[in-house]
Amino acid sequence: MLSEQFINTLRLAIEKELRLSVDQVVDPNLPDLRGMITYHMGWEGENAGSEASGKRIRPLLVLLVTAASGSDWHKALPAAVAVELVHNFSLIHDDIEDNSPLRRGRTTIWKKWGVPQAINTGDAMLTLAHLALLQLEETTSKETALRAARLLQDTCLKLTEGQHLDIAYQDRSDLNIEDYWPMVEKKTATLLSTCTGMGALVAGADEDRQQAYQRFGHLLGLAYQTLDDLLGIWGDTEVTGKSADSDLFTGKKSLPILYGLNQRGVFAIRWVQGGIKPEEVPALARQLEVEGAKAFTQDTAARLTQQALETLEKAQPQGEAGDALTSLTFTLLKRQA
Amino acid sequence: MLSEQFINTLRLAIEKELRLSVDQVVDPNLPDLRGMITYHMGWEGENAGSEASGKRIRPLLVLLVTAASGSDWHKALPAAVAVELVHNFSLIHDDIEDNSPLRRGRTTIWKKWGVPQAINTGDAMLTLAHLALLQLEETTSKETALRAARLLQDTCLKLTEGQHLDIAYQDRSDLNIEDYWPMVEKKTATLLSTCTGMGALVAGADEDRQQAYQRFGHLLGLAYQTLDDLLGIWGDTEVTGKSADSDLFTGKKSLPILYGLNQRGVFAIRWVQGGIKPEEVPALARQLEVEGAKAFTQDTAARLTQQALETLEKAQPQGEAGDALTSLTFTLLKRQA
Repeated sequence: MLSEQFINTLRLAIEKELRLSVDQVVDPNLPDLRGMITYHMGWEGENAGSEASGKRIRPLLVLLVTAASGSDWHKALPAAVAVELVHNFSLIHDDIEDNSPLRRGRTTIWKKWGVPQAINTGDAMLTLAHLALLQLEETTSKETALRAARLLQDTCLKLTEGQHLDIAYQDRSDLNIEDYWPMVEKKTATLLSTCTGMGALVAGADEDRQQAYQRFGHLLGLAYQTLDDLLGIWGDTEVTGKSADSDLFTGKKSLPILYGLNQRGVFAIRWVQGGIKPEEVPALARQLEVEGAKAFTQDTAARLTQQALETLEKAQPQGEAGDALTSLTFTLLKRQA
Repeated sequence: MLSEQFINTLRLAIEKELRLSVDQVVDPNLPDLRGMITYHMGWEGENAGSEASGKRIRPLLVLLVTAASGSDWHKALPAAVAVELVHNFSLIHDDIEDNSPLRRGRTTIWKKWGVPQAINTGDAMLTLAHLALLQLEETTSKETALRAARLLQDTCLKLTEGQHLDIAYQDRSDLNIEDYWPMVEKKTATLLSTCTGMGALVAGADEDRQQAYQRFGHLLGLAYQTLDDLLGIWGDTEVTGKSADSDLFTGKKSLPILYGLNQRGVFAIRWVQGGIKPEEVPALARQLEVEGAKAFTQDTAARLTQQALETLEKAQPQGEAGDALTSLTFTLLKRQA
């Protein structure tokens, strides 16, 4: 309960700082550009609100790690805002690249304002992220601001490398389970590892603890993605069970699917033919389970979750923030099918 | 002649540093991503070479200003590489947004590898730019690196704001001559002003001189764009005179065209109807000239050129580099129709 209150306090601070980082920086003479940004962030337009904004997991991780390292979380607000804006930049561009008409239940920017403005708004959001980060110079030191800037830029490069693989995979039918990890590490784990690492960096934690937090974020990212892949096929039917949402229908190269392809059995033969229809999805999910993909994915998720929790323990998170960080980690990783 | 040799020396150094900033940073396991970047930079693929690479004006300006401020231009190489990569990032995304199949006579990335990979490669190039810039920490100081990082991020934001206007203008028929300058300042002048300003910043020039150089770059950008707009309609027929290349056919919102719209005469009436055919272009160019647009654009270019040269003089460029900077400015601005 205390953890929940603490997390709510942080969420409010994050939202306020995010708004400032847009309001104070984007040219007020360009209301349409501002409007696309505030719409995507979930602050304006149809169905605006917390559902449309997403869970703000990444900035929460930054602030919680700073506080759990015994420092004042306010110092890390520029970094928190920056990682959330980087995440949202990547969503805007991914939605164009994946041709996705919906995001968090709302029309995507490219669908609403066209591809040219959507690409450009993503570019603006990425720049806003880096501008926000540079404010660390005021809350910490030049040294820390520069290290954080380098870390975030390295992360952005990895994001684009991961996205490059993801797009390239769409045209490949020869994928192997080994192709999965480089993509997920670059697309998901790197940014989470940067969130926790940057929280520790801002706190001025010693090198060992910074590395433990960074490693924790990395494992959290891998575990989270593995669980997400599990839900993408065998998720609770009330939440994600529509066959049209299944990764089997959308063709996502997820862990269970790559595992199934590796078996070269009934599933693989059907998959390679392509054109899977929604009505085939339930039987195909059962076939994939029979071939061992569900158990394999569950085992992988359990192993990664265990490793993430052990690594978090090594980082020795302190006080109320430490409890909240552990609690948030449990919430994120307990989403088993 | 001496100036030419000096500029050639700088060009070689820029090209070498640009290649390093890609080779040493992008994951070697992703040859296709590297290939898209090296293709766009003009180093690989069909018709690779200096024609395909462009003139590298922006990094040249950085290095020349650093040297003309009495400092060692090698210190500014990270900044030079950064501005050129930012410029090329914007070209990759602009080509998608403008639906342009050709750039410097070669197939554009999106046309060759599809829109998703092209968006993503542009994102990677922008990140490479900022990573290169942060190397200023090694050649100058933490203070300078942070100031330069902020300057470049501010510039990137203005670029996206300018591009936002440019895209928005495509659907508007009510544009006025006052709409021209905010777009050109953000799209063209800001980056050039950052090139010259950053050269002076790296050199450790005093505040007054930094501002003079920054202002010079700004005016150079405005003058250059105005001349470009003049050539876009009344350019030398051997170089750009094909009617299909004319801004009158492509519909670019250039200075003479906005001037013509302001006159609300024969030209404006025809323009607003849309669908101008290549065979109409010569007569329409003559009509625009009769209505005063050519003289107005020439006068504007002459005034801006004069202001740019006066401002450059105020900055007191020194030595061989100063001569080369003045010589480069003359080359860029003498392109009168």
